[in-house]
Amino acid sequence: MDLYFSPLACSMATRIALYEAGEPANYLEVDPKTKAVRTDGSDFNKVNPLGLVPTLRTDEGVVLTENAAILQYVADRFPRAGIGSASNAERSRLHQWLCFIGTELHKGLFLPLLDRKAPQEAKTYAVEKYVSRLDYLDNYLKGRDFLLDHFSVADAYLVTVINWTMATPPIELAKWPNVKAYYERLRQRPSIARAIAEEFELYKAELARKKAAA
Amino acid sequence: MDLYFSPLACSMATRIALYEAGEPANYLEVDPKTKAVRTDGSDFNKVNPLGLVPTLRTDEGVVLTENAAILQYVADRFPRAGIGSASNAERSRLHQWLCFIGTELHKGLFLPLLDRKAPQEAKTYAVEKYVSRLDYLDNYLKGRDFLLDHFSVADAYLVTVINWTMATPPIELAKWPNVKAYYERLRQRPSIARAIAEEFELYKAELARKKAAA
Repeated sequence: MDLYFSPLACSMATRIALYEAGEPANYLEVDPKTKAVRTDGSDFNKVNPLGLVPTLRTDEGVVLTENAAILQYVADRFPRAGIGSASNAERSRLHQWLCFIGTELHKGLFLPLLDRKAPQEAKTYAVEKYVSRLDYLDNYLKGRDFLLDHFSVADAYLVTVINWTMATPPIELAKWPNVKAYYERLRQRPSIARAIAEEFELYKAELARKKAAA
Repeated sequence: MDLYFSPLACSMATRIALYEAGEPANYLEVDPKTKAVRTDGSDFNKVNPLGLVPTLRTDEGVVLTENAAILQYVADRFPRAGIGSASNAERSRLHQWLCFIGTELHKGLFLPLLDRKAPQEAKTYAVEKYVSRLDYLDNYLKGRDFLLDHFSVADAYLVTVINWTMATPPIELAKWPNVKAYYERLRQRPSIARAIAEEFELYKAELARKKAAA
């Protein structure tokens, strides 16, 4: 299984899922700017014309894109890990959270804040329109350990997204104490602690390369 | 089953899915501005604190939110309609398309264009960042009838989104001939023709009420 990723991008959720499952994969780092695959310099756009990570190539050679699809593929591929849904009712909840995180938080709120090319007006608009989603999430997480009744790929995705608040100063995590507590608790989880530590090193190296090239 | 919807909003995809399945539902219209449920004037925010349609209440009384989750629920609830995935491989593709439509097209490209409160800079940014997704889609749809090998809830969602190009002048559908042909072909499909015709009447009534209140 090949996982195309960029350090600390939303592809980290799939790394967390694979660490949870205890399953190996080839992690192929994609430079977010040049779209070159770092191992061999090949053009990632030829794998995924949208140039977006994560992209997964299964052992059967099937190329899958889109975070929610890849996370559910990994959960279904390794059912013993118990990171998917355990029942029909839970499956709908899993779909619901993956969709909420992907649309309201990732694309709606965080993407414009993280994008250096986004004009200030687009950033302000994103905060005004979507910051209430963190209130909703904070209320939901009160008294809960996970989004479902157990750790799932939705948590892997949510932690990855909340982790971006380090780089998005208008979003002060302290304003949402339940989200903050959830994030701080989950980043102690071995799979997540390992993924963040490893990708943070790769991220620093990416920044250093960018600086050297400038 | 209760479906909270607003005319021509993304909730129309679930109406199409239910018409495909030939299954009845209570369609509860939500005023997009006041968030009042039109049948009884009740506050929709009490059903879904995010105030977002679609929201579905199942026959068992479970409230489901998020378009992708609701569409998959309807597909799974009425398997004879054949609008879900027929195999594991197809399930991943369905997840992929629902995620792509929800994040790249709906939230990324169209939402800022449709939102009157969005500043011009946010609209321009949305077009610059996401319009290439229509190129990708156009290329994919070449020679295909549907997103999967048969009509599915992903098509119901895509047609609903493409239908918005009537109201988003920077996106001229003629630039993407395969998307345009797909849209024009699918809107002849009885479930879709009926849903669009009915919701267009409700939309005109909504506009008339807004005008009268102004």
